[in-house]
Amino acid sequence: MRATLMYGAGDVRVETVPDAKIVERTDALVTVTRACICGSDLWPYQKMERNATGNRMGHEFMGIVEAVGADVRTVKKGDLVMAPFAWSDGTCEFCREGLQTSCLHGGWWGGTKLDGGQGEAVRVPQADGTLVVLPVGRDDALMPSLLTLTDVMGTGHHAALKARVGPGKIAAVVGDGAVGLCAVIAARRLGAEQIIMLGRHPDRIALAREFGATDIVSERGEAAVARVKELTGGLGAHSVLECVGHGESTLTALSIARPGGAVGRVGVPQEATVPAALPAFFANITIAGGPAPVRAYMEELLPDVLEGRIQPGRVFDRVTTIEGVPDGYRAMMAREAIKVMITF
Amino acid sequence: MRATLMYGAGDVRVETVPDAKIVERTDALVTVTRACICGSDLWPYQKMERNATGNRMGHEFMGIVEAVGADVRTVKKGDLVMAPFAWSDGTCEFCREGLQTSCLHGGWWGGTKLDGGQGEAVRVPQADGTLVVLPVGRDDALMPSLLTLTDVMGTGHHAALKARVGPGKIAAVVGDGAVGLCAVIAARRLGAEQIIMLGRHPDRIALAREFGATDIVSERGEAAVARVKELTGGLGAHSVLECVGHGESTLTALSIARPGGAVGRVGVPQEATVPAALPAFFANITIAGGPAPVRAYMEELLPDVLEGRIQPGRVFDRVTTIEGVPDGYRAMMAREAIKVMITF
Repeated sequence: MRATLMYGAGDVRVETVPDAKIVERTDALVTVTRACICGSDLWPYQKMERNATGNRMGHEFMGIVEAVGADVRTVKKGDLVMAPFAWSDGTCEFCREGLQTSCLHGGWWGGTKLDGGQGEAVRVPQADGTLVVLPVGRDDALMPSLLTLTDVMGTGHHAALKARVGPGKIAAVVGDGAVGLCAVIAARRLGAEQIIMLGRHPDRIALAREFGATDIVSERGEAAVARVKELTGGLGAHSVLECVGHGESTLTALSIARPGGAVGRVGVPQEATVPAALPAFFANITIAGGPAPVRAYMEELLPDVLEGRIQPGRVFDRVTTIEGVPDGYRAMMAREAIKVMITF
Repeated sequence: MRATLMYGAGDVRVETVPDAKIVERTDALVTVTRACICGSDLWPYQKMERNATGNRMGHEFMGIVEAVGADVRTVKKGDLVMAPFAWSDGTCEFCREGLQTSCLHGGWWGGTKLDGGQGEAVRVPQADGTLVVLPVGRDDALMPSLLTLTDVMGTGHHAALKARVGPGKIAAVVGDGAVGLCAVIAARRLGAEQIIMLGRHPDRIALAREFGATDIVSERGEAAVARVKELTGGLGAHSVLECVGHGESTLTALSIARPGGAVGRVGVPQEATVPAALPAFFANITIAGGPAPVRAYMEELLPDVLEGRIQPGRVFDRVTTIEGVPDGYRAMMAREAIKVMITF
């Protein structure tokens, strides 16, 4: 089968690899119908040390179940399913609490031992805990929006929950990538009264406005902080959704939160420490977040997608086949594309 | 009047200063009956740069109202009152939300412009928002416990709330100073099932056990983390109460929190950044806390003190007059005393 591997920074290849197959009794074999490239894939694309064997890539996919192991009960051959960006057993203490990204028997797609989503098929461990069956056909027009439930829409929702967005609150979103745009959808969905998007790219800003952003701040650093303060009566935002992960963006996020407010961080941290320990302390700002347990959010968000109340699939502005994946990485890195969908 | 000033690290003096007096129509003049030395006073005692004019010290006091400004409505001459460690108007947006430490018209005791609590009298700005009248006599046996409501007991309670202590939860307290000991009381009061105290001093450990600590961990660093993991089924504590403020103690706090758990930090940060950005992110650990809005907690905690359900005043193990304050600092710094009470 064909699959995507990364061998080092900037070196993404599509190669023929051994066919995915069932190994454990709890596995399912899924033929991928749609997948995508994630903003978080761009971190290794910039930084990965060269590796002779390469890492399988991709953690966002949906597809058709081809076969299941002897112990699998909740999915069967022929089902159209989606997978969250982390697999999980669904039964451990953390899964029961809704924090499937910390599953005691779960893990992450790709790398050197497991299939990645950016390939023709995937062995899915812990299929009963991991997969969610979709009640639509494989070519339904809703596919792009459903695909976002595997990561970016659930991640934006996590940022909003952890930033304690609610009715009447002022939310600010740092980062205009696909996650930031989904965070705008999530903030609006949870009732934010004012939604300030910090971003600079005209196409993304336009989409953010359509998703519900009420104000756009295109300044950076201290100028951005000053502008957000102006827009919030001098006090800052109750809820800040950090969707980048840089030290600088985290500092901005902490600086625009009002006293007693919360920063929900979902951008993977690119530095070893969190800045502004003392100012954030004196303002009693809560720093929360992490990898989103999107498995927990799939059921909650699914009706809104199926009934058309949210359209997160609009973040996809480019489509490619598997052979075009390397160029998809390049295009996202160059900010030519917000998010690239892969069809099979 | 006599008052305490700090001129630099290790240099605390009791001097005669101009008598405190009413300046604003919203002020009250309070003759101090009890005050104390705070663990946070030991930070400048170790680090303060020399200052020719000196800083007035002390932010925990109770006393008798001697006079009030023309606009003061809620306290009157002769009332026995306690003051939180920050003064606040009680009417601004943050005060109404219960975050009086971020009051838009409030501030901190002492320094170069205001009286401090470690002195014979204090001009109290925003008296209506700041002071709470006590329904007992000035020499009541409950005075030590009531005095802790001005800071350490409310601060321990804040750590517990921000760490989301609740019934059935495992709490861990980092730091065996007066705040850490009060944090044990707070964790028990909020229903924690297991309370692990990280501390090394036998007298403090003994008191922690009496306050409700179920386990003591006297190791440090990685050994402490391993021991807490052992005590918590390998997973860590739901709620970690950080009552020190060092980078090392913060790292320990983040390392012993279980995935999805929370660290409530009330120790004033002594470093510019929060460590372990990435591990805390991957485990979805919430970092919350800051200066406790003890004004908000006074009413809540007062009945428990008045009815003897909690006895936080037991953290005072030394009493001095105002002239003995410099030696009180020395004794607390040398860990000869947990917390020093000043009587007038």
